[in-house]
Amino acid sequence: MRGTAQRQDIDHVTDETAALERRFAFLAEIDGLKAVLRQNRTVGERRRENSAEHSWHLAMFALVLGDHAPGLDMGRVVAMLLVHDIVEVDAGDVPIHGAYDAAALALVEQAAATRIFGLLPDAQRDGFLALWKEFEAVETAEARFAKALDRLQPLLLNTLTDGGTWAENGLTEAQVMARYRPVIERGIPGLWPFVEALVRRHYRGGATA
Amino acid sequence: MRGTAQRQDIDHVTDETAALERRFAFLAEIDGLKAVLRQNRTVGERRRENSAEHSWHLAMFALVLGDHAPGLDMGRVVAMLLVHDIVEVDAGDVPIHGAYDAAALALVEQAAATRIFGLLPDAQRDGFLALWKEFEAVETAEARFAKALDRLQPLLLNTLTDGGTWAENGLTEAQVMARYRPVIERGIPGLWPFVEALVRRHYRGGATA
Repeated sequence: MRGTAQRQDIDHVTDETAALERRFAFLAEIDGLKAVLRQNRTVGERRRENSAEHSWHLAMFALVLGDHAPGLDMGRVVAMLLVHDIVEVDAGDVPIHGAYDAAALALVEQAAATRIFGLLPDAQRDGFLALWKEFEAVETAEARFAKALDRLQPLLLNTLTDGGTWAENGLTEAQVMARYRPVIERGIPGLWPFVEALVRRHYRGGATA
Repeated sequence: MRGTAQRQDIDHVTDETAALERRFAFLAEIDGLKAVLRQNRTVGERRRENSAEHSWHLAMFALVLGDHAPGLDMGRVVAMLLVHDIVEVDAGDVPIHGAYDAAALALVEQAAATRIFGLLPDAQRDGFLALWKEFEAVETAEARFAKALDRLQPLLLNTLTDGGTWAENGLTEAQVMARYRPVIERGIPGLWPFVEALVRRHYRGGATA
């Protein structure tokens, strides 16, 4: 009896250590998100933003603007935003204003998700994969809110950095409205008039009416 | 009646717009956290980590290691970690291995918290201030877990960057154990043996026994 109990103790410790090895391997691997550069620039230094600090900023957007999306599970929204770009460690960031092959990108990102989340113990891997897929599918209210914030944050940065990616890509006010409005309005219906005024103020230099 | 109803509508819209102006001013201001550099280096690029990407990494540590702190309100832990360094926009980062005047720093950080969180509407300001104070006071189980992660993340980075700040500051294995163990063990009691083995492996080059 005593021998069996000891063996079970050792198995338990071994399993727990193995799970921790996998968790720490994942936490080390995702450090790579700090080296993935986006097109947007930071407000103060005007350097390109990386996807790790972008993810932090988005999570703060969720906490600050949560009142505008009543009834959502904000814990799931925040978790979704924290993990939504992790596939970019392998796949890189794809700028919204560039041309790309959506089907090819989806394959690359799925392979990245399988590899990176696969570093974790199985149950945890499945939980993070489900969060990432929920964000990508945009079928739940939480994912629609999260996607809206993922458009809103670079929009705010662009208005604070002399037009940012809009200026770099020569976008008109109408093009900006067309690219940002549907996603923001779908996820945070009541917020669009305020956001539209921000864009208009940027393009027309102070006129908000 | 109709006039009064219209006036109330206008007041409501005006109040909501004023609240949004404050929320967006806050979201723009905290972009500055991306320009606050810590002593730790990132794994791939070996550049100094900034406090925004550090905060994202910490929130991921909480999601991944939450099982090791059963019974906690993980939503509050994650929110606490997302906001815990925002005062550094004004106060800067204070390295753990340097000398500093704790009382003077506390005053500077309190002024920073008052100014930055004060950009938000009052109720939201109070909520974020309470989260930040909870982290600083380290009296709740959630704050103890969050503080432990705030020690654990740079520890992991140091083991992945040739000793990082330990090497730069000439710290011995015993000094590292003394500085990290109490905070990590207090917040995540069961995790210390695994973490101790990480540190030992770093200093002794593979010997984990």
